[in-house]
Amino acid sequence: MSTSPGLARTPEPPYYAVIFTSRRTPGDAGYEAMAGRMVELGSKQEGFLGIESVRGTDGAGITVSYWRDEAAIQGWKRDAEHQNAQRGGRQAWYADYTVRVARVERAYGKE
Amino acid sequence: MSTSPGLARTPEPPYYAVIFTSRRTPGDAGYEAMAGRMVELGSKQEGFLGIESVRGTDGAGITVSYWRDEAAIQGWKRDAEHQNAQRGGRQAWYADYTVRVARVERAYGKE
Repeated sequence: MSTSPGLARTPEPPYYAVIFTSRRTPGDAGYEAMAGRMVELGSKQEGFLGIESVRGTDGAGITVSYWRDEAAIQGWKRDAEHQNAQRGGRQAWYADYTVRVARVERAYGKE
Repeated sequence: MSTSPGLARTPEPPYYAVIFTSRRTPGDAGYEAMAGRMVELGSKQEGFLGIESVRGTDGAGITVSYWRDEAAIQGWKRDAEHQNAQRGGRQAWYADYTVRVARVERAYGKE
């Protein structure tokens, strides 16, 4: 799954969204490999429902991952390999970021 | 405000997020002008808290707008000029999209 895997097919609400908005530091420094690995690993977590991710040419990015419940989000946050990646994010890859945890209450599509 | 205005500075939760994920049709067809106008107009709405928006080179986009409450979201959805834009989105600008309305329960940043 690349950084633009298309629209996630999620079940009927309620479920949870983790909205991760960020600005990258310049250069790769292992970022792309880590990001691909985190999508691969996160997608296998219990309670994972889907992910949507876009990064612009100016380094601004938004990744929204969808989860069955708060317990699933906490489980993924505590994953050891993910914790290493979080540390790298704070120290090297992101100039700035915000994480928001939100409960999806309703959803609709084009049709 | 461009399509990558940086990270939104939102107040302490709770508040609401509208997560709009989309795939654009090819070509502009008035899209950029409309998108800029909608950010300008939406930002003036009662209860608007901020917006983050990124579109990738492949046409995938994520826009998250933040709102004080559901009433503010409904007010913006009913705005006449915005309703015209929504119609254009369904008919021309978007190959596909999903709208999710979510209640932000907690948030944290880099430091």
